[in-house]
Amino acid sequence: MVTDQLGTARTPGRPRSEKAEKAIIDATIDMIAEGATVAELSIEAIAARAGVGKTTIYRRWSGKEDLVVDALTSLKAPIPDLDAPTVRENIVRYLAAMQHESHSRRTRCIMNIAMSESERFPTLAERFREIAIKPRREALRVVLQRGTASGELRPDLDVEVAMASLTGAMLFFTKWRENDDPLPPDLADRIADQILPGLLP
Amino acid sequence: MVTDQLGTARTPGRPRSEKAEKAIIDATIDMIAEGATVAELSIEAIAARAGVGKTTIYRRWSGKEDLVVDALTSLKAPIPDLDAPTVRENIVRYLAAMQHESHSRRTRCIMNIAMSESERFPTLAERFREIAIKPRREALRVVLQRGTASGELRPDLDVEVAMASLTGAMLFFTKWRENDDPLPPDLADRIADQILPGLLP
Repeated sequence: MVTDQLGTARTPGRPRSEKAEKAIIDATIDMIAEGATVAELSIEAIAARAGVGKTTIYRRWSGKEDLVVDALTSLKAPIPDLDAPTVRENIVRYLAAMQHESHSRRTRCIMNIAMSESERFPTLAERFREIAIKPRREALRVVLQRGTASGELRPDLDVEVAMASLTGAMLFFTKWRENDDPLPPDLADRIADQILPGLLP
Repeated sequence: MVTDQLGTARTPGRPRSEKAEKAIIDATIDMIAEGATVAELSIEAIAARAGVGKTTIYRRWSGKEDLVVDALTSLKAPIPDLDAPTVRENIVRYLAAMQHESHSRRTRCIMNIAMSESERFPTLAERFREIAIKPRREALRVVLQRGTASGELRPDLDVEVAMASLTGAMLFFTKWRENDDPLPPDLADRIADQILPGLLP
C-alpha cells in the first residue's frame, strides 16, 4: 500500500481527483438529462449529487458555466483520426463520428436543453463553440483543403459551402429526425456518395 | 356607410375578424419575442395584449398550442412557386425562400424559444411539423423527383440524402451562424452550384 504526502493510504488505481471529476461531470449531465435548466443548476446541488465538496469543483472549474461546457464537450465523439489515404474515407469517418455521437436520445435531449438557453447564457454557448465545435469543423476544413491540393476535389471548391452541405446533411438526419427510427448504418457513405459526385447525371 | 345585421355601422375595408386575428397572432409573436415561454403564455394574457376578448380567440383556436402553431407558421416564408423550367432554378428558389425567412434575428429568436420547449409540448412541435414543415419538404421532394424523371438529375438519385444536403446546407448557414454577419445574397446559387455538380474535379 502506498501512502501519499499526508500519510493517507492510497490504493493503486485511478487517482482520487480523476474519480471526483468524473462524478462531477456525470452529476451535471444527469441533472440536465432530468430536466434541470442551466439557470436552475447550482454548484451546490451538483456537488451534493456528485458526493464531493464545493471546493473540489472550484479547484477545476471557475463556475457552473465552465462546468456545463466541459460536461457537454464530454458528450461529443472524439475527433476521429482523419489520416486515411483518400479524402472520401476521411469525409466518411468525420460524418460517421457525427452520427455516432447523436445516437443516444439522452445525449440529444441534453444538448437541446443546454443549448436552448444560449440566449440567456451566451458565454456558455460561445465557449462550447470554441472548445467543442470549431476544432471539429476546422478538422473537416483541413480535409477538404488537402483534397483540393491533392487533386481529388475540384480546384474551384467552395470550401465553406462544401462543409455546410456535408455537415448539414448529417445534421439534417440527426437533429431534425421526425421520429426516433434508427438511422441507416451506412448513412455517412450515402451522404458522401451523393455530395462528392453530385446530383447531375 | 353599411350596417351589418345587428345594425352596427361598418366602415368598408378589412373585416373585423381578420383584424382581430392579426392582432392575436401579432400579440402571440410579440410575447414570445419578449421572452415568454409557451408554458408562460395564456389565452387570457394574449387576449389582453391583442385587445380582444377571450371568446374571439376561442372562436378560431381551440387552445394556446394551436394558436402558437399558427403564429409560428405565419413567420415562415410562403412556399415559393416551384414551376420554373429547370430543376436548378426551382432548387434555388426553394433555398432562397429558406434564407429569406431566416433573415430576421427576431424571427430566429422566436423559433428557437418556441421550439426549445418541444419536449414539454410535443403536440405543438408535431403539429408545427405537420402544418409548416412537411408541406415545404414535400414540395422540394417533388422538384427532385421531377428532375430525375426529366433526366436533369441522375437516375439513381438518393432523394432523401439529396434533400438533406440541400436543405441542411442552407440550415447550416441560417441556424448555426456563428455570428450575425449577413449571409451572402447569392448563397442559394452557391449551394446549388456545389451540390448539383458535386465536389469532384
